[in-house]
Amino acid sequence: MQKRIFSLAITASALTLSSLANAQEKTPPPMKPEATEFYTPVPPKVTPGAENTAPPSDAIVLFDGTSLNGFVSARDGSPAAWTIENGELVVTRGKGDIQSKLPFGDAQYHVEWSAPTEIVGEGQGRGNSGFFLMGMYEVQVLDSYESKTYTNGQAGSIYKQHPPLAMALRPPGEWNYYDIIFKAPRFNKDGIVTSPATVTVIMNGVVVQNHVTLKGPTEYIGIPNYKAHPEKLPIKLQDHGNPVRFRNIWVREL
Amino acid sequence: MQKRIFSLAITASALTLSSLANAQEKTPPPMKPEATEFYTPVPPKVTPGAENTAPPSDAIVLFDGTSLNGFVSARDGSPAAWTIENGELVVTRGKGDIQSKLPFGDAQYHVEWSAPTEIVGEGQGRGNSGFFLMGMYEVQVLDSYESKTYTNGQAGSIYKQHPPLAMALRPPGEWNYYDIIFKAPRFNKDGIVTSPATVTVIMNGVVVQNHVTLKGPTEYIGIPNYKAHPEKLPIKLQDHGNPVRFRNIWVREL
Amino acid sequence: MQKRIFSLAITASALTLSSLANAQEKTPPPMKPEATEFYTPVPPKVTPGAENTAPPSDAIVLFDGTSLNGFVSARDGSPAAWTIENGELVVTRGKGDIQSKLPFGDAQYHVEWSAPTEIVGEGQGRGNSGFFLMGMYEVQVLDSYESKTYTNGQAGSIYKQHPPLAMALRPPGEWNYYDIIFKAPRFNKDGIVTSPATVTVIMNGVVVQNHVTLKGPTEYIGIPNYKAHPEKLPIKLQDHGNPVRFRNIWVREL
Amino acid sequence: MQKRIFSLAITASALTLSSLANAQEKTPPPMKPEATEFYTPVPPKVTPGAENTAPPSDAIVLFDGTSLNGFVSARDGSPAAWTIENGELVVTRGKGDIQSKLPFGDAQYHVEWSAPTEIVGEGQGRGNSGFFLMGMYEVQVLDSYESKTYTNGQAGSIYKQHPPLAMALRPPGEWNYYDIIFKAPRFNKDGIVTSPATVTVIMNGVVVQNHVTLKGPTEYIGIPNYKAHPEKLPIKLQDHGNPVRFRNIWVREL
Repeated sequence: MQKRIFSLAITASALTLSSLANAQEKTPPPMKPEATEFYTPVPPKVTPGAENTAPPSDAIVLFDGTSLNGFVSARDGSPAAWTIENGELVVTRGKGDIQSKLPFGDAQYHVEWSAPTEIVGEGQGRGNSGFFLMGMYEVQVLDSYESKTYTNGQAGSIYKQHPPLAMALRPPGEWNYYDIIFKAPRFNKDGIVTSPATVTVIMNGVVVQNHVTLKGPTEYIGIPNYKAHPEKLPIKLQDHGNPVRFRNIWVREL
Repeated sequence: MQKRIFSLAITASALTLSSLANAQEKTPPPMKPEATEFYTPVPPKVTPGAENTAPPSDAIVLFDGTSLNGFVSARDGSPAAWTIENGELVVTRGKGDIQSKLPFGDAQYHVEWSAPTEIVGEGQGRGNSGFFLMGMYEVQVLDSYESKTYTNGQAGSIYKQHPPLAMALRPPGEWNYYDIIFKAPRFNKDGIVTSPATVTVIMNGVVVQNHVTLKGPTEYIGIPNYKAHPEKLPIKLQDHGNPVRFRNIWVREL
Repeated sequence: MQKRIFSLAITASALTLSSLANAQEKTPPPMKPEATEFYTPVPPKVTPGAENTAPPSDAIVLFDGTSLNGFVSARDGSPAAWTIENGELVVTRGKGDIQSKLPFGDAQYHVEWSAPTEIVGEGQGRGNSGFFLMGMYEVQVLDSYESKTYTNGQAGSIYKQHPPLAMALRPPGEWNYYDIIFKAPRFNKDGIVTSPATVTVIMNGVVVQNHVTLKGPTEYIGIPNYKAHPEKLPIKLQDHGNPVRFRNIWVREL
Repeated sequence: MQKRIFSLAITASALTLSSLANAQEKTPPPMKPEATEFYTPVPPKVTPGAENTAPPSDAIVLFDGTSLNGFVSARDGSPAAWTIENGELVVTRGKGDIQSKLPFGDAQYHVEWSAPTEIVGEGQGRGNSGFFLMGMYEVQVLDSYESKTYTNGQAGSIYKQHPPLAMALRPPGEWNYYDIIFKAPRFNKDGIVTSPATVTVIMNGVVVQNHVTLKGPTEYIGIPNYKAHPEKLPIKLQDHGNPVRFRNIWVREL
């Protein structure tokens, strides 16, 4: 324990000590409420968006409907070649995945997407894309609205790791949003993971991932297995061949 | 490890075993993608609200603007006596705290509130109320918009435990929302806490509490100290004497 | 926030209030040390074992060298048919796995084991057994002393999930111990895991698993996938065909 | 999801696809066990101590009975002036706290101590010292053997934060050991804690702290409140005026 101030011990009379001892076993003595009030560090002021889904004042906006300047091709770093239509970003088949120019790790991510209204295919073949945290941890984007697929591949799943707690998708053509809270993994000097990544996802107002622990990078075939990597890496959007639409993508570092 | 199937060991030739051994130290052998796809348990279907803040189909609605039937007085269990104006619930000075009839624990909570437009008082005296999880863990409700107070008492703080990560309040008269993800504490047979409560709060689209660990029940004077309690208890709204307004209160059990 | 006591507000003079306000922004006012001292609940008294590895007074002893009464065959519930030699429990090839009569969940587990001195086989074929928490989450028991195998199959691994942080085995014939701290998983009403199992393992004084999150039950072939189960289940010791020896097995519920 | 390999889709016959689809809803198809076996990164080899409490080969030994070279005075950085008797380090009244020359953070700590056989004082006045992780997070060292004090001040408590789960002390003159697993807190750019410190303590073979979350630095008077600090800082041993003895102090970074 922290040391008692000496003078206290010396000047206190036996009577006082005795009454202190008794007091200890009863209710804690009164203290002032100010004793548990702190003034630093001061939380930064952030102005929320006009709408609750709009970027707060400290967000880094990756796509606001006007340009793809925040992204490049994940294949070769060339300019991102997806289409923008009516302020919406459309996955353009064959152009490949795109990734943010900036790297991110521990952060809050916001993204909105809608599935193609022309329904083609089924299961994983219908309205499929993906939002890859750090380019490797996928929050699944899929039109699984009234469409059957494996649970750990549904919209809102951590792909092939954690099924969503609920299937809370809106129908094709309507906009879904994901609020994602992500903590990047950490590794020790031997390259072994010491703090696995964790993620929380709220989808359309419904908690679908509640602080789940990621098992490693997303794998389509085989099992996830962590490999040491930096604390920040670009996010990636997937070209899975379906014209999924995105809008309003922003990030706040935590 | 799980035991190898016997027949495998017996029928495999020395040659095969040797090539298996080599294979082990290289890339894992191909497997089918279906091997990592699961079909049960099936996440329940939930229809999101028309607006993202509206109650999803599986939510328990505590206040929808029409009645206070979901609440009673926290003092004596009599009918809750706060005022409803224009579909908004107004804290009514002197009527005391109110609490939900139903008990909750691990759950997602949604609540919206606005501070009085007539600004009276300062610091903790201005637009003060509180949303108490399980009746004892307070997410602070306070008009701290351009008003100074201690950081661990600002709006969005876990009162006197965790300051918010950001000050993301809207001005008096505008509506703020909290999306709260809460995990109730658990206790062992000796009454010692073995899993402390954790909470995440998103306020107006901004993460203000990121899976923080609660130190015990909220205390105005003194320090928090867990005492064993059931896994579900009613939520409580505080009468702190200021006409704070609430609307759209719902809960989804997790 | 908790409401101020009324009399305080009434009796305090304007001067006092003002000085309080100033005080708030500086150092918290003095309080008594007793204010942060608590007397209940009282931690139960436990007498440690004479040796640090011996069972403390509140441990449930599953094997103390004298009998196998604490175990049954995992195959059919018949009496456990492994051999006891010199107070040591020897895995007896062909007798199958054995499991405790009592079920356990959240607990501290202690087990000691030694690998056969006659070295036969290699990799997973040498001195292989397993300690299965709840009968399904395996802490690997294997003679991987100077013997190569996959990292997530070494002694001290969570089999096929988490390699040990260090390879801290003693040579065949010497005794190794595991101190295991385990938290059982919890599931929601839909059967989805809400709190995955966690485990910490100290092996021969060396931390080899540091509060890792289990991915599901141990699988030899395929990937782990949680299925809802009770909060307590018997532990299991594996008959993998090798005469591994065990001693001093005890459990303390947490 | 990860994209299917194109050639697969092209060469597979309609029949095969159809049977695959059926297979998906049943048991996952067979895969090879090697698919879930990994060979890197390789856990470093560590030789355990001859006794389980002796330093493993990769430990940094801070006190082995021969010298105080690993420590300095916490007051002024001068040579540590406590006494060594029979290979034991004795707290020397008035010489003040001592701290390690090396800083540590995330790590496993081992320390042994014994209370004075001549019993003087009571409660916090009897055989009191402390083991301060990072110089500020105290694991309490106290002769609370058959001596009453507040629960969050007993031996094995996180002082004034977490009482021990059990009172597992040995009598004065006998040696107690602590195996401590500690994770240092992390802070964001605003100085707000984003990952609080966690600690697990095994005392004489008994888990007394199970991955508890620290509330901030230890405070004798008042409540703990995190302030941003580096990821590694020296450990501190407390001079509380009682001739507590220490031996066998070592650290393994995690």
